[in-house]
Amino acid sequence: MTRIAVGIEYDGAAYSGWQQQAAAHSIQAALEQALSRIADHKVETICAGRTDAGVHAREQVAHFDTQARRTSLAWLLGTNTELPDDISLSWVRTVPEHFHARYSALTRSYRYLILNRAARSALQARRALLVHQPLDIEAMQAGAQWLLGEHDFSAFRSSECQSHSPMRRLDSVRVSRNGAWVAIDVTANSFLHHMVRIIAGLLIMIGQGRVPPERVRDQLQLRQRGSSTATAPAHGLYLWQVDYPPQFGLPMDSAII
Amino acid sequence: MTRIAVGIEYDGAAYSGWQQQAAAHSIQAALEQALSRIADHKVETICAGRTDAGVHAREQVAHFDTQARRTSLAWLLGTNTELPDDISLSWVRTVPEHFHARYSALTRSYRYLILNRAARSALQARRALLVHQPLDIEAMQAGAQWLLGEHDFSAFRSSECQSHSPMRRLDSVRVSRNGAWVAIDVTANSFLHHMVRIIAGLLIMIGQGRVPPERVRDQLQLRQRGSSTATAPAHGLYLWQVDYPPQFGLPMDSAII
Repeated sequence: MTRIAVGIEYDGAAYSGWQQQAAAHSIQAALEQALSRIADHKVETICAGRTDAGVHAREQVAHFDTQARRTSLAWLLGTNTELPDDISLSWVRTVPEHFHARYSALTRSYRYLILNRAARSALQARRALLVHQPLDIEAMQAGAQWLLGEHDFSAFRSSECQSHSPMRRLDSVRVSRNGAWVAIDVTANSFLHHMVRIIAGLLIMIGQGRVPPERVRDQLQLRQRGSSTATAPAHGLYLWQVDYPPQFGLPMDSAII
Repeated sequence: MTRIAVGIEYDGAAYSGWQQQAAAHSIQAALEQALSRIADHKVETICAGRTDAGVHAREQVAHFDTQARRTSLAWLLGTNTELPDDISLSWVRTVPEHFHARYSALTRSYRYLILNRAARSALQARRALLVHQPLDIEAMQAGAQWLLGEHDFSAFRSSECQSHSPMRRLDSVRVSRNGAWVAIDVTANSFLHHMVRIIAGLLIMIGQGRVPPERVRDQLQLRQRGSSTATAPAHGLYLWQVDYPPQFGLPMDSAII
């Protein structure tokens, strides 16, 4: 039995999310079907972070066990031939049996991408949130700073969140502009359900001047969702990177957009 | 009567190209249909460079005449609402009557985009050519230099090219690498049919070491297609930018990818 880790890139637009939903099309089902064909036996995968319907991944990580003996290149090319166009493997590595895509992960990084202009973009359709009004990046960045460190993020989780603890450690958050494109990059040990999208929704309101940057602090202290907070739409969100201890020898940054 | 110029972005994957083909779906037809709805009369457009089936545009430029009175913002938002997801207007400007999207253009710039690694990319599916073997960028750049200046480009046109003259002036050509991504950027007064894709095909062969950089010079002097030359596929090609005299006040670089 060999344990194998894979890096996975996908456009989430056509899927119900990572996980199998009744009567809907999932990334996981498409991936397991393709891997099973190459392995010649049924393959089950476990991923680093289950993404919601419509959310993209620049780099998701998953692992599976197999009896098949194939080179990494054979797994890579074979699986990519079996996968639909909007899902691809970017790398394949044999890992020790104690590697676990979810439990071995040190941090997850997400990017929320905003197109900040009047005109939508054909080439980035369903790949970024269109916001017409000019966003004040400095105000967004000022508000974001309140999120850094360990907090009770109860105000930044969906009502369906099943996590036992609302405590999370946010390692970094950065709001940056490149022309009309605005990116919100966040890294944490892990995230609560809808946490990045609720953060993005609040930072966008701050960027529009509808609430002051201090609203982030107030919201955190409140420990419950404010009535005015919005969850930013899924199609602007990317699982950007998952970091593991260097001992596993996984690619540092194989994905480039 | 008002003449209006527009910047157009599109993913060419689903289209027969810019121009209307019998029984096929064209960018021009989709655009004219959307503009006609906003204008409330039939609109006919003329573009800077007719792209082939499958070719994308970061920034195509077109003009049309209308009796309708609308603000630029109303044209922009209205037309983008009527257009399909994979076509969008990035800007709208009122221009003098003597402006002509094709004849006023000083230069056209195209980018040919290559993903140079074993794994295809889900997020850039049908947006770049996948080349497995490592490309030698220096060799490609060395070969490309022979193309600079005014030449008879008979060896770099398709057999269906209808241009009267095979003479063109290549202002710049640059081959660059950013991680696994390789871009070939070319600017000329105008291009012959398939010219960029034939240049890209030959430069890729040079990058793979299959022919020496001097093959570009030899091919130019031959003034006919070599038997071994390949036309690179349409899905890696982008109409990147069209430049006009500054007097027309068109946006310098509104498009950002």
